[in-house]
Amino acid sequence: MSQAAVPKSAGKTKFALKTPKGTKDWGDKDMVIRTKLFDTISSVFRRHGGVTIDTPVFELREVLTGKYGEDSKLIYNLEDQGGELTSLRYDLTVPFARYVAMNGIQAIKRFHIAKVYRRDQPAMTKGRMREFYQCDFDIAGVYESMVPDAEILSIVVQVLKEVGIPDFTVKVNHRKILDGIFGHCGVPEDKVRTISSAVDKLDKLPWDEVRKEMTEEKGLDGEIADKIGKYVQLKGTIPEMIEKLSSDEDLMTNESAKQGVEDFKTMLPYLEAFDVVPFYSFDLSLARGLDYYTGLIYEAVTAASAPPEEAGDAKKKKKKNDDDDASESVGVGSIAAGGRYDKLVGMFASKKNGDIPCVGISFGIERLFSIIKSQGLYDHLRPTATQVFILAFGGGPEWTGFLPERMKVAKKLWEAGIEAEFIYKSKPKLQKQFEAAEKSGCPLAVILGQEEFNKGVVKVKELGLGEQDKGVDISVDEMVDYVRKKLESF
Amino acid sequence: MSQAAVPKSAGKTKFALKTPKGTKDWGDKDMVIRTKLFDTISSVFRRHGGVTIDTPVFELREVLTGKYGEDSKLIYNLEDQGGELTSLRYDLTVPFARYVAMNGIQAIKRFHIAKVYRRDQPAMTKGRMREFYQCDFDIAGVYESMVPDAEILSIVVQVLKEVGIPDFTVKVNHRKILDGIFGHCGVPEDKVRTISSAVDKLDKLPWDEVRKEMTEEKGLDGEIADKIGKYVQLKGTIPEMIEKLSSDEDLMTNESAKQGVEDFKTMLPYLEAFDVVPFYSFDLSLARGLDYYTGLIYEAVTAASAPPEEAGDAKKKKKKNDDDDASESVGVGSIAAGGRYDKLVGMFASKKNGDIPCVGISFGIERLFSIIKSQGLYDHLRPTATQVFILAFGGGPEWTGFLPERMKVAKKLWEAGIEAEFIYKSKPKLQKQFEAAEKSGCPLAVILGQEEFNKGVVKVKELGLGEQDKGVDISVDEMVDYVRKKLESF
Repeated sequence: MSQAAVPKSAGKTKFALKTPKGTKDWGDKDMVIRTKLFDTISSVFRRHGGVTIDTPVFELREVLTGKYGEDSKLIYNLEDQGGELTSLRYDLTVPFARYVAMNGIQAIKRFHIAKVYRRDQPAMTKGRMREFYQCDFDIAGVYESMVPDAEILSIVVQVLKEVGIPDFTVKVNHRKILDGIFGHCGVPEDKVRTISSAVDKLDKLPWDEVRKEMTEEKGLDGEIADKIGKYVQLKGTIPEMIEKLSSDEDLMTNESAKQGVEDFKTMLPYLEAFDVVPFYSFDLSLARGLDYYTGLIYEAVTAASAPPEEAGDAKKKKKKNDDDDASESVGVGSIAAGGRYDKLVGMFASKKNGDIPCVGISFGIERLFSIIKSQGLYDHLRPTATQVFILAFGGGPEWTGFLPERMKVAKKLWEAGIEAEFIYKSKPKLQKQFEAAEKSGCPLAVILGQEEFNKGVVKVKELGLGEQDKGVDISVDEMVDYVRKKLESF
Repeated sequence: MSQAAVPKSAGKTKFALKTPKGTKDWGDKDMVIRTKLFDTISSVFRRHGGVTIDTPVFELREVLTGKYGEDSKLIYNLEDQGGELTSLRYDLTVPFARYVAMNGIQAIKRFHIAKVYRRDQPAMTKGRMREFYQCDFDIAGVYESMVPDAEILSIVVQVLKEVGIPDFTVKVNHRKILDGIFGHCGVPEDKVRTISSAVDKLDKLPWDEVRKEMTEEKGLDGEIADKIGKYVQLKGTIPEMIEKLSSDEDLMTNESAKQGVEDFKTMLPYLEAFDVVPFYSFDLSLARGLDYYTGLIYEAVTAASAPPEEAGDAKKKKKKNDDDDASESVGVGSIAAGGRYDKLVGMFASKKNGDIPCVGISFGIERLFSIIKSQGLYDHLRPTATQVFILAFGGGPEWTGFLPERMKVAKKLWEAGIEAEFIYKSKPKLQKQFEAAEKSGCPLAVILGQEEFNKGVVKVKELGLGEQDKGVDISVDEMVDYVRKKLESF
């Protein structure tokens, strides 16, 4: 996915001109889409009372240590050039928890849109970049049980609807239910994390293969695996699954599982009030990799985010060249994910009772972006905001093609807050000017003509209509008002 | 400037909870100001036809090599964890030039607002952070001489006026004039850069001290230094200085100096057309450190950006503790700077004729931010966008304090695009709810009362008016329209 343009032999640079592996430039056309995405998502976050904060792109290395389990090896370190040891942030959640603890914050609803960094190997990327944006909304504080969780789940739905993602589903599960199932089935304490990560693969692999991983690779007793298999293949609507799990008297003797189911029971009427229940699939195979989750977990997927049939093959083929990025041949994976993490702030807090319960969601912009782009949803957006192009038709008083005069007109429009351009040339050809105007896609032209100009008059003409709009002559003094009204009328 | 909160003895973390040296968190109140700043600056950039792009936060190390002269030692390297060697970007200009060359772009007006990284030592910071934002606007392409330069100079003025910076001056000079003066005075070729950087200190030091640095430290002949001194202490309006330099027949025999003065002559009518001439001071002591400038250079300063009297002392005192940041006791330095760099793209381009001339400006957000904050210019801005707080007055049908009902009302408002909050509590006290509403600063309350609710009615009340506004009873179905009209009327 990194862009490369190897210079020809005669180059002054001795190296391939490219961005680092796993990163890319965003050109103007893509930036319009990304900006629109950010605006839509921020608008939803603000609607829910979110404030925004910013943290540095790198943290003291110790802040990140011990938060990401196996994925810690993907953290980018900065070189030790003297002074503190630092690393690029891996997500926005751990820096947020550090911020909450450091500032002694008791309650906050915050959002943060920023880049994070992961040294993912191409074979592991599943459409992931090494530098990518996350859009996070988190609610920290002690509140009525499951109320912030329900609001976050309603935000997932609202964002994906407003962004324009078709046919999405939000899988939900609960760490306590998973832990309860593992305990109930007899998984030894020290195997819980590794068995959990096997379960998490059920969205890509059939049960047989996952079972094989559990028993052959991870040494789990076959009978225990079968018991687990009975549970983790269950999914349904939230009401269905509450019913099913509650009536499993055996499982309900496990305190952890029981608590998890109680949480769903508490949350259901809130999701009903938010009118979002049909968007969720209560899926016992959802496990989520990160260590820090303690309660509800969720992950949004769409049909468009599933891996294509040939993904596995393409990955194998590419593997021989480690510098390639296989991401283009696999699905984009989940488009949003999150959960409850009640102990993370406490890991930074100074007092014993420094735990601040948190729940949050993270949207992956690159993934939403590829779906939106492939569906052409935002194709109507223009890279420039230019509304008026100023053209010279004639020489002007000093035969410069009205260059200073075009500048004066531009200045009037700029001061009035109107986006305006002219071409940086004296004596420009009319044709060239119209081409530039049309390339910018702007709707209006202001034309300075020899005869009109001598009378203090310019012509305002709609672009793209050809001879249909002959334009209107208007005095330079009235131009700004006229242009503004004309633009408002579109 | 890095925020620190050392945990008490019983802490779970063994390290001081802080952000890395030279970095800081941005809290919600500061973020409102920063966002407003970005919006204002982007709006000006867009008004001038700018498109935006984004490049990765780190580049291949080779891309940055040989671009920053002495300052190269301030570049942050990423650790070699296998694979390519990379470094954090030092500015947005070199990545822009790399982008233009790599994509074979012939002409672009682009802006880029993003963080850059410099391992500046505290004694060198002059208010500088190690992580800070730059807002850059650059025009690349072959155009009529000095036209884009004039537009960029007009953008400097427009941005600083719209942001609200009082009493600013934009110093301008020309690398060719400086080079011409050094040549004319007889500075040996190999001393030009070091003498140039001594000249650049004239904004902080008297001529005597700069002369001493030139002769005693840098071994320049005293007579040559005196000749330089005669020139670099000159400043005035652009028309005055054009007059003065043009009439110096001796200096005008130097081709480089003559070309530089010609550029100013060409540009003057454009600056007049943009009506910005009074904002500039043509100052021959302005040199700018970076290697890549080839023509016009400029730097905006304000009274507020000068170092306070005691800055020198404070710096000395602080020096013993290298981890402190002396920046708070010195002025903020320049608030915007830039120039023409015609050879930088060519350093990356593959063909001999790959030079794309460029001119640009960079605004320093942290510096604008401190001026704006200290002057309280944006104090009226609120961290949240909340417009409506939903309150319960009574138990509701299930005696939960209308918790699901408040959610349903919130959902209606959110879907209509209206920012709304409620407190995450069943049976909340009315007083607590009003406190939360007032803390958010939102203008309207929607109140669910026992009697009204039974009739399908809620009360909409203006906040902050006490008993003056008794509120209006309105049916739930008409609430959204009523609230919208009410908000529009403010």
